Amino acid sequence: MVKKVLKFGGTSVGTIDRIRHVANIIKKEQLQGNKVIAIVSAMAGKTNELISLSNEISNEFNKREFDVLLSTGEQVTCALLSGALIKLNIKAKSFLNWQIPILTDGEHTNARIVNINVENINEYLGNNGVAIIPGFQGISKNLDITTIGRGGSDATAVAVAKIFNADTCEIYTDVDGVYSTDPNKIPVAKKIDKISYDEMLELSSLGAKVMQSSAVQTAMMYNIPLEVKSTFTERKGTKIFSQENIDYSKSVTGVAYSKDDAKITITGVKDRPGVAANIFEPLSKGQINVDMVIQNISSDLKTTDITFTVKRNDVLKTKKILKDYSKIEYKEIIHNEKVAKVSIVGAGMVSTPGVTYKMFRALSDEGINILAISTSEIKLSVIIEESNTLKAIKKLHTVFDLD
Amino acid sequence: MVKKVLKFGGTSVGTIDRIRHVANIIKKEQLQGNKVIAIVSAMAGKTNELISLSNEISNEFNKREFDVLLSTGEQVTCALLSGALIKLNIKAKSFLNWQIPILTDGEHTNARIVNINVENINEYLGNNGVAIIPGFQGISKNLDITTIGRGGSDATAVAVAKIFNADTCEIYTDVDGVYSTDPNKIPVAKKIDKISYDEMLELSSLGAKVMQSSAVQTAMMYNIPLEVKSTFTERKGTKIFSQENIDYSKSVTGVAYSKDDAKITITGVKDRPGVAANIFEPLSKGQINVDMVIQNISSDLKTTDITFTVKRNDVLKTKKILKDYSKIEYKEIIHNEKVAKVSIVGAGMVSTPGVTYKMFRALSDEGINILAISTSEIKLSVIIEESNTLKAIKKLHTVFDLD
Repeated sequence: MVKKVLKFGGTSVGTIDRIRHVANIIKKEQLQGNKVIAIVSAMAGKTNELISLSNEISNEFNKREFDVLLSTGEQVTCALLSGALIKLNIKAKSFLNWQIPILTDGEHTNARIVNINVENINEYLGNNGVAIIPGFQGISKNLDITTIGRGGSDATAVAVAKIFNADTCEIYTDVDGVYSTDPNKIPVAKKIDKISYDEMLELSSLGAKVMQSSAVQTAMMYNIPLEVKSTFTERKGTKIFSQENIDYSKSVTGVAYSKDDAKITITGVKDRPGVAANIFEPLSKGQINVDMVIQNISSDLKTTDITFTVKRNDVLKTKKILKDYSKIEYKEIIHNEKVAKVSIVGAGMVSTPGVTYKMFRALSDEGINILAISTSEIKLSVIIEESNTLKAIKKLHTVFDLD
Repeated sequence: MVKKVLKFGGTSVGTIDRIRHVANIIKKEQLQGNKVIAIVSAMAGKTNELISLSNEISNEFNKREFDVLLSTGEQVTCALLSGALIKLNIKAKSFLNWQIPILTDGEHTNARIVNINVENINEYLGNNGVAIIPGFQGISKNLDITTIGRGGSDATAVAVAKIFNADTCEIYTDVDGVYSTDPNKIPVAKKIDKISYDEMLELSSLGAKVMQSSAVQTAMMYNIPLEVKSTFTERKGTKIFSQENIDYSKSVTGVAYSKDDAKITITGVKDRPGVAANIFEPLSKGQINVDMVIQNISSDLKTTDITFTVKRNDVLKTKKILKDYSKIEYKEIIHNEKVAKVSIVGAGMVSTPGVTYKMFRALSDEGINILAISTSEIKLSVIIEESNTLKAIKKLHTVFDLD
């Protein structure tokens, strides 16, 4: 007997036909003797619909009531999926956030799950029932409904898997796994069979929107085996494990890219001690997340140019803070939003010499100029002109044997 | 200080603009120093939308999950109305069925409210907050969500008014009160300022769909003053009291009609003792509600024709039961669905001689044939050909000085 947590995202339950299909997936698991807890999202589009209603009333809609509003989305799916299972003669029942209860730290719209009561659900599973739980929500100790941020159903699934001591946590979605790069852009992209938590984390934070990062982090922390798979095909998905369970034949696992970044350059900065602190301290106080930094020595040797990257929608705020608060002397601040970040990710990188050189050579062969570089143990990111993105991904995908 | 329960129906909260309007109505009450508990329905159309989803899965959708599904409709309205009040700088908060809790007897889709915990809400009202409660729902002692039948928000409002010992219970709706007859059909229909519970009950059970009957019944039982009024005008509504508070200048308060009825005639029935029991016993066992009965002696004096009325959608079932189970001998069973029930209602009727005669004379003057008659202390109903409905209502409305 295997205890499984299955999580179904918004597109997987987006229509009644799809809910019926999900019920069949669960039925199959149940008939194989598995104990199933299913976590469901709101039907695709429903959450946005509810958010629009609240925006019509106020852009600063009260957060407590916002959570009351949004939590109905998953409740609807719970009821419909339970009904669909019962129609298939499977014993099933919805367990709502307050019925279980799922206890959170109480922060509205961004709560963390603190505890989940297992007693009733374990008893129900023991009697061959399928438990259906709404993702994305819980209650505070004051009995207020609290949601746990967008994509939060992944976090619910991982927390449930942890607390119920499940053997596996399967994330059903509309793609059939994690790819070596974006399959919509690069047709030779390959599905990855196994990937480590760290790699998955880098890939999701770099733009691969398969799973919510903090859920992967929790899974890593408690060593909960994950599998990302498609609701719509029977193909195997991508398994996400801890690193030691993976045999690395390749140094690089995937190529990711994102177009969220912008490059800011401050020219003619008087080069004296403390200049970097004077630039980045006010930015940090202003909640601006600075990603990569490069410092060039300018021609006159007395001044320098400082370049760094921030998220695109932080550009205006960044320029304002620099003008108003930083105590540096400079010539001008210029920015470029037409840049992209391209990264190679792989737990094998650390043990493979020459990966960095290989990447730079490959880009140089394509005539692609590198505007900034940042590295970590399992990741190497570069900023390039946006127009070169596709060319860069293709080249790197080939060079690192991912085609 | 007055404690008020205000109930807003589906059309009253059917759009964000209307919810904003309702928030303003509540704000005005609150600024006058009144303590307000608002009961809300689902936004117009939402409940039907949810029912359709469940029907797509199964026409016999599991009742427990049906209640989980439907209860989200009122929850959405609660959150939006609370948010709209907060936006107007009014302290407001949604109190959901399980947060209060509203305890029911546990019968899914048709529960009765058994108790409501007043503590938290009374404390909140004491701190000048407006409490927003979802109508139509509660929880069982097993913590299952249970809905209380369609139109159940009226029942919630009356139960809340009773248990919180409110001074008044105002039912906001899309009409501005109870009319002497259907104002859409008869332009001279007049709004009734005051009406007794009994009359209101007769009118609602006879087709005036202003308030749910069982809610009126509860209000009558506990003597809770009701007022039905329009969300969209500032005009006074109709007050519903116990009879002794009303001064009757007129014998008849209103004229109601319904087109739900059908007439069934069994011809050539052998006239012997027990024949009526043999007909109506199996119907009663089959849950068929028989309304009026007439027995004619047929020409040969040995057989009789028995006519009665049932709800239109019971006609086929009724005929089947009569053919299969009743032990009587008869010639044939014929039915007529083209009939209407027209009723005059008035608490003053009992003390006014000649009302019956006056009604029959009026219909006869218009050449309208009466097919069946039924009377109660405060009501007189006749079945006539459907095509005569409008003519009959108009005439009765005039004859009883209601124009």
